[in-house]
Amino acid sequence: MAQEKKFVEAITSMDEDFAKWYTDIVKKADLVEYSGVKGCMIIRPYGYAIWELIQKELDRRFKETGHENVYMPMFIPESLLQKEKDHVEGFAPEVAWVTHGGSEPLTERLCVRPTSETLFCDHYKDIIQSYRDLPKLYNQWCSVVRWEKTTRPFLRSVEFLWQEGHTAHATAEEAQEETIKMLNVYASFCEEVLAIPVIKGQKTEREKFAGAKATYTIESLMHDGKALQSGTSHNFGDGFARAFGIQYLDKDNQLKYVHQTSWGMSTRIIGAIIMVHGDDSGLVLPPKIAPTQVIIVPVQQQVEGVLDKAYELKERLSKICRVKIDDSDKMPGWKFSEYEMRGVPLRLEVGPKDIQKNQVVLVKRINREKLFVSMDELETKIPEVLDDIQTALYNKALEMRNSRTFTAVNLDEMEKILNETPGFIKAMYCGNEECEIEIKDRMGATARCIPFEQEKISDKCVCCQKEAKYMVYWGRAY
Amino acid sequence: MAQEKKFVEAITSMDEDFAKWYTDIVKKADLVEYSGVKGCMIIRPYGYAIWELIQKELDRRFKETGHENVYMPMFIPESLLQKEKDHVEGFAPEVAWVTHGGSEPLTERLCVRPTSETLFCDHYKDIIQSYRDLPKLYNQWCSVVRWEKTTRPFLRSVEFLWQEGHTAHATAEEAQEETIKMLNVYASFCEEVLAIPVIKGQKTEREKFAGAKATYTIESLMHDGKALQSGTSHNFGDGFARAFGIQYLDKDNQLKYVHQTSWGMSTRIIGAIIMVHGDDSGLVLPPKIAPTQVIIVPVQQQVEGVLDKAYELKERLSKICRVKIDDSDKMPGWKFSEYEMRGVPLRLEVGPKDIQKNQVVLVKRINREKLFVSMDELETKIPEVLDDIQTALYNKALEMRNSRTFTAVNLDEMEKILNETPGFIKAMYCGNEECEIEIKDRMGATARCIPFEQEKISDKCVCCQKEAKYMVYWGRAY
Repeated sequence: MAQEKKFVEAITSMDEDFAKWYTDIVKKADLVEYSGVKGCMIIRPYGYAIWELIQKELDRRFKETGHENVYMPMFIPESLLQKEKDHVEGFAPEVAWVTHGGSEPLTERLCVRPTSETLFCDHYKDIIQSYRDLPKLYNQWCSVVRWEKTTRPFLRSVEFLWQEGHTAHATAEEAQEETIKMLNVYASFCEEVLAIPVIKGQKTEREKFAGAKATYTIESLMHDGKALQSGTSHNFGDGFARAFGIQYLDKDNQLKYVHQTSWGMSTRIIGAIIMVHGDDSGLVLPPKIAPTQVIIVPVQQQVEGVLDKAYELKERLSKICRVKIDDSDKMPGWKFSEYEMRGVPLRLEVGPKDIQKNQVVLVKRINREKLFVSMDELETKIPEVLDDIQTALYNKALEMRNSRTFTAVNLDEMEKILNETPGFIKAMYCGNEECEIEIKDRMGATARCIPFEQEKISDKCVCCQKEAKYMVYWGRAY
Repeated sequence: MAQEKKFVEAITSMDEDFAKWYTDIVKKADLVEYSGVKGCMIIRPYGYAIWELIQKELDRRFKETGHENVYMPMFIPESLLQKEKDHVEGFAPEVAWVTHGGSEPLTERLCVRPTSETLFCDHYKDIIQSYRDLPKLYNQWCSVVRWEKTTRPFLRSVEFLWQEGHTAHATAEEAQEETIKMLNVYASFCEEVLAIPVIKGQKTEREKFAGAKATYTIESLMHDGKALQSGTSHNFGDGFARAFGIQYLDKDNQLKYVHQTSWGMSTRIIGAIIMVHGDDSGLVLPPKIAPTQVIIVPVQQQVEGVLDKAYELKERLSKICRVKIDDSDKMPGWKFSEYEMRGVPLRLEVGPKDIQKNQVVLVKRINREKLFVSMDELETKIPEVLDDIQTALYNKALEMRNSRTFTAVNLDEMEKILNETPGFIKAMYCGNEECEIEIKDRMGATARCIPFEQEKISDKCVCCQKEAKYMVYWGRAY
């Protein structure tokens, strides 16, 4: 038990130091290891298994909505990156430049893709000629590079994994419809699979993507009251099409520019899972993306029959869920802590007394609730319990967010909330960028989004007190 | 029909110009598009769908054999690449160098990974301490970059997709066992899934991987008689472990170096699929990795009931195979050519007369054989036919290879074969590298492998006529 205690003590408490709590989990749950390359992380098997489950589920949703996967080069020639003015201004300061191939200098520098709009546009220009070629609904899974100075595992790293969807449409209406459709795919994925409630809305002019006509976002709230942008969907209008010359011959025999979108979700979302569901015992994973959903811990495993029964149960359960057994010679208490740290949703304990009673003990990670379940009912009971946990995690996260969502009508109120009980702040906004800058400078908060679900908090802008245009979610953000 | 004819004529015949035939297929079957980045290809939806099926099947086999996926950074600091002498000598001349991040020059150059041995070693050094930490059985799916001057889609490109397995073991025996196990995984994958027969063997000293103690390979034979290295598995012994200091405390309380392996298969294998199975009508895909296994072509689709029946069949078949329907207003003849070009294994035709007879017509891509099948039997018949096609493709490829596998006892014989009927040449080898160099210089052939299944063609080396050590498969290669 000394070992167990030591293990638990090794995690910094969330309230004591949230940033340290986060890095403790990331390291001790074996999600990530630092690499010798500054700002680049190694995603370890347990972390990567979570990403694989995210990929599988998202990819299914992309394909169901008619999208196809492709693979573009990882390099972008400097001249290609420069074709769309706003876009290059947004990204050029943070790209990695390849200048030599083997021992020879290149005639033109290549950047390692920070995002692939320019590559997709260059390709669309070649493959789109007629209205018959539209829409193009492409997606790509890859890694991208952004030369960040301050990095944190998953949240901000020089290289990260993501998917980027890039589509081309005949009309502005279709492009807008796609932009919102994919935002909704992200939102329902977050809510249904990751058990993370999100606010859907539009970014302000100041916060939108470099080169976009409009950017839409889903924003989620972390345990420390900071917001995390969890997925974005951009409508480019025909801006890129004009810059790259992507035209099609329409039915009316007129040459027209296509309308484009792009949308992305990255390994950053794993940071959200940690910071929305985790607690002082470690990671808490929603069953739908838990690499191990049920961990079997034999109790008094030296007693004859216990291990055999545990193996038998594992065999049975492997047909209905992702199950593992820990038959190592470590103490059960150590094992309990270990799998709590790793966020396994459900622990199944089985010992000599349980076998006598033809039962097992199920312990929920979310609240340590114990259930005694007959061995004959496991196939029906365990999926039910996993579903309950999934729902409970969502509800818990929603309650947390609601309890940390406030309103403010002036900057003093806003600042007080941010300093005392940080969270989302709903407040009115006049639409003038100077107010966003003032809020950012004074208290480090940004406009997270103009939510689709508008409320009227007051008539006046929270900052300048002039007439308000809309309600905005504000917050400090990752 | 004019359209159809034009379509078919657009492919260069294999015998006329094999290289042109290859690029015609790659482009016209929409597998790949050239990009604006020299030597980098765009993998289009149809090509990528094949890769996804390959990934899925290989990944399943890796996991079944106990491997876990991870993700390493794409950058390698120059000093890290240089740690293993042979390795850096092999790769440094062909890597891309990142020298700037944003607007600032880096203090140390980073190369874009050409392969990740050095990164895995650097990581293993940190995470391996005890015999309890072994074995480490990791794999990674990613893209790598090698600065090639002459490139061809799939076969040789500056950037390509692959998987690279990297494992660490307690003993030399375990490492050797793993090396051979993974070679066998590749071999059975090629034979069972891609319907490509392979020769398993060891690379000669001259041909082995930079830094390896021994390299094993599977070699396949293309339609033009050239060999293609289709997958490799390397035993590193403890060479990398010594260079990187990867030691573990063994049960006997001694510090020991680990023994390592690596193994990889890449998008290159798609080139093999094309060149082993393709014909003058285009691509031919084995059912197991065909994105579309059955294409439904309605005949006289303007006749009432035909399209309804076709949709109904599609609905039914989608439960048992990957099926698509082409209900466009193009002529059936055009459609026949189109899906032959794209290598769809089975065409299902259904027209008014078929409906009357309660039958459909199945046409096999491999030989245009027609089968008339009752509509009531499709669920049992189609999987059977797809299996038959898979087997027939393998047998056809095996016959092709056998008919182009020759023996030679001296260089004149060897050269005559290579010039007149290129293929594999089984010939004896003394083991002296100078003979390999002479053969390479004189006729451009290399030692493909020392096959596990040895035969005695003669007593003397095909080149120097001194005593032979073993039989080698020789050939010109991609």
